Amino acid sequence: MATIQDVAKHAQVGVGTVSRVLSGKGYVKEETRQRVQASIEKLNYTPNEMARNLFFHKSGIIAVIVPEVAHPFFAQFVNAAEMVLCEKGYQTMICNTYYEQNYEQRYLEMLKQRRVDGIIFGAHTVLDILQYKNIHLPIVALDRDLGENIPCVCVNHKMGGQMAAEELLRSGCQNVVQFVGIKEEKEVSTPANVRHEVFEETMRKHGILCRSIHIKWPTVDISYYQNIAARLLEDYPDIDGVFATDLMVMAVLQSALQHRKRVPEDLKLITYDGTNNIALTYPQITAVVQPIERLAKEAVHLIVDLIHGKSFQNKKIELQAVLRPGDTTMGG
Amino acid sequence: MATIQDVAKHAQVGVGTVSRVLSGKGYVKEETRQRVQASIEKLNYTPNEMARNLFFHKSGIIAVIVPEVAHPFFAQFVNAAEMVLCEKGYQTMICNTYYEQNYEQRYLEMLKQRRVDGIIFGAHTVLDILQYKNIHLPIVALDRDLGENIPCVCVNHKMGGQMAAEELLRSGCQNVVQFVGIKEEKEVSTPANVRHEVFEETMRKHGILCRSIHIKWPTVDISYYQNIAARLLEDYPDIDGVFATDLMVMAVLQSALQHRKRVPEDLKLITYDGTNNIALTYPQITAVVQPIERLAKEAVHLIVDLIHGKSFQNKKIELQAVLRPGDTTMGG
Repeated sequence: MATIQDVAKHAQVGVGTVSRVLSGKGYVKEETRQRVQASIEKLNYTPNEMARNLFFHKSGIIAVIVPEVAHPFFAQFVNAAEMVLCEKGYQTMICNTYYEQNYEQRYLEMLKQRRVDGIIFGAHTVLDILQYKNIHLPIVALDRDLGENIPCVCVNHKMGGQMAAEELLRSGCQNVVQFVGIKEEKEVSTPANVRHEVFEETMRKHGILCRSIHIKWPTVDISYYQNIAARLLEDYPDIDGVFATDLMVMAVLQSALQHRKRVPEDLKLITYDGTNNIALTYPQITAVVQPIERLAKEAVHLIVDLIHGKSFQNKKIELQAVLRPGDTTMGG
Repeated sequence: MATIQDVAKHAQVGVGTVSRVLSGKGYVKEETRQRVQASIEKLNYTPNEMARNLFFHKSGIIAVIVPEVAHPFFAQFVNAAEMVLCEKGYQTMICNTYYEQNYEQRYLEMLKQRRVDGIIFGAHTVLDILQYKNIHLPIVALDRDLGENIPCVCVNHKMGGQMAAEELLRSGCQNVVQFVGIKEEKEVSTPANVRHEVFEETMRKHGILCRSIHIKWPTVDISYYQNIAARLLEDYPDIDGVFATDLMVMAVLQSALQHRKRVPEDLKLITYDGTNNIALTYPQITAVVQPIERLAKEAVHLIVDLIHGKSFQNKKIELQAVLRPGDTTMGG
């Protein structure tokens, strides 16, 4: 297969000239242009987007970095992001960080080397936040704060936590548990944690007992959730309300029904995220639903703007979660 | 940022020479090598993997093409594939085909142009199968037959269909429904369809009434499944067994419980795929479980071998599904 070098050699010009002919940008003498064109045809050269991008320092690729693409929230986010990126002419590269330590440094290097044009970053960071301070390249954070140079797309989690608390209060809960992600050593602040603070505060304000149990976040290991759910009902047989994310709440519902608890009479459940498949349980779980497709759309629009050299207007784009009433609470 | 061209110009050599110095492959005079090295340091040039790959016609990227990455089966497949690809030093590009018509042609072009090194193809094809006949590039098919040049990784669906049928027979079903994906116009044969033929055949052999209902495949539109499930129980109130994939079976279970049917006493359910999250329902659904992580591993090993110029030994690598007994059948 002919390369851009073969074409340059055949036409007796530099690769830069071939590149200018291919892109139509920059000055090339008409006679030279025709000679290059003839060589392209003679050698049956397929214009190589990668070569073209190389000369323009563009890869046409956006990296989407998430903990695990199999996790329902991130599966739905990546799905939506890929669709919008595709419409805008970009390819989507994914990277799971859950099992990989050095991904972050690696992808920042790829960005510096222009192997990817931008990064949508939806995972925990293990790097010193200062490293991000000196980067002026297209990065958009999903739901975490990577310093003042990097815009963040997220949901108003304060309101989300409030909604969850109020729904359990309306349902008459007196003794609730919420599941909170374990804080990692170097973890940056993520807006998502605010919901737990608000939830606890609201409960305390109403004199309701509220325990916070810390679990791994976000794993797709189902038996991990099942074990925690089983222990929960053994350790705290008297709880009457649980607030957690989708897979954890599904596991609690399963365990509660196995233990012949009545939901919602004995135990009220409310979930956070409200990903697609959780709508298929029986009883249907009351959910604070994150607008995942819109989060993806905003993140993509923002990254494409940054790639095109625009600067962002708002450091934080905050969308609203909504309450989807189900059959595991009685707030209605 | 310095480019390989800047280095070449500074060292007064061709880009090819710089490339040979970077890669350590091919002959370069020691004096020239030192001059190039000095220019690299002087210009603070970061060896650009993209440039390096360009000269070796490698991108380091594998495209994984699936209908929708949010679909539980494909989410789990892509998750596992990314992990193994990452271990082997490859980046993973994903492409959802569900909403996109021209993806296939586009990715084949990318492969021809070496923008990706290989494709793992897990979606329906809309191209004439003959187009694949003339391709001798690294492509691995997941669960579909793309002609003799392209190896296929799949599960023994014949055995899978048989297992499902026998479990419903052992549970005493007399009147069953299976859900089958709608055949698309230009669809190539996929081994997965065999399970439905075997299922129906086995039922007929035992004198059991067996209906096949055709549905869209594979969508992540939950209300689509819910509507079909609701209609199923209205149209066929007397059925006592259902065989389908995970989301469809979850919807049938939900609808059945809403209609106060007893599962498994009145209605037996068995699902195909057995993705992670389906283990969180109550009652737990009996499943024919596909070894998704192993499918991904085999597909990745195969594509890497093909990229390294090895030819494949077997046109078809067939793994075994296993029956995971749950509480929606009574075969045990």
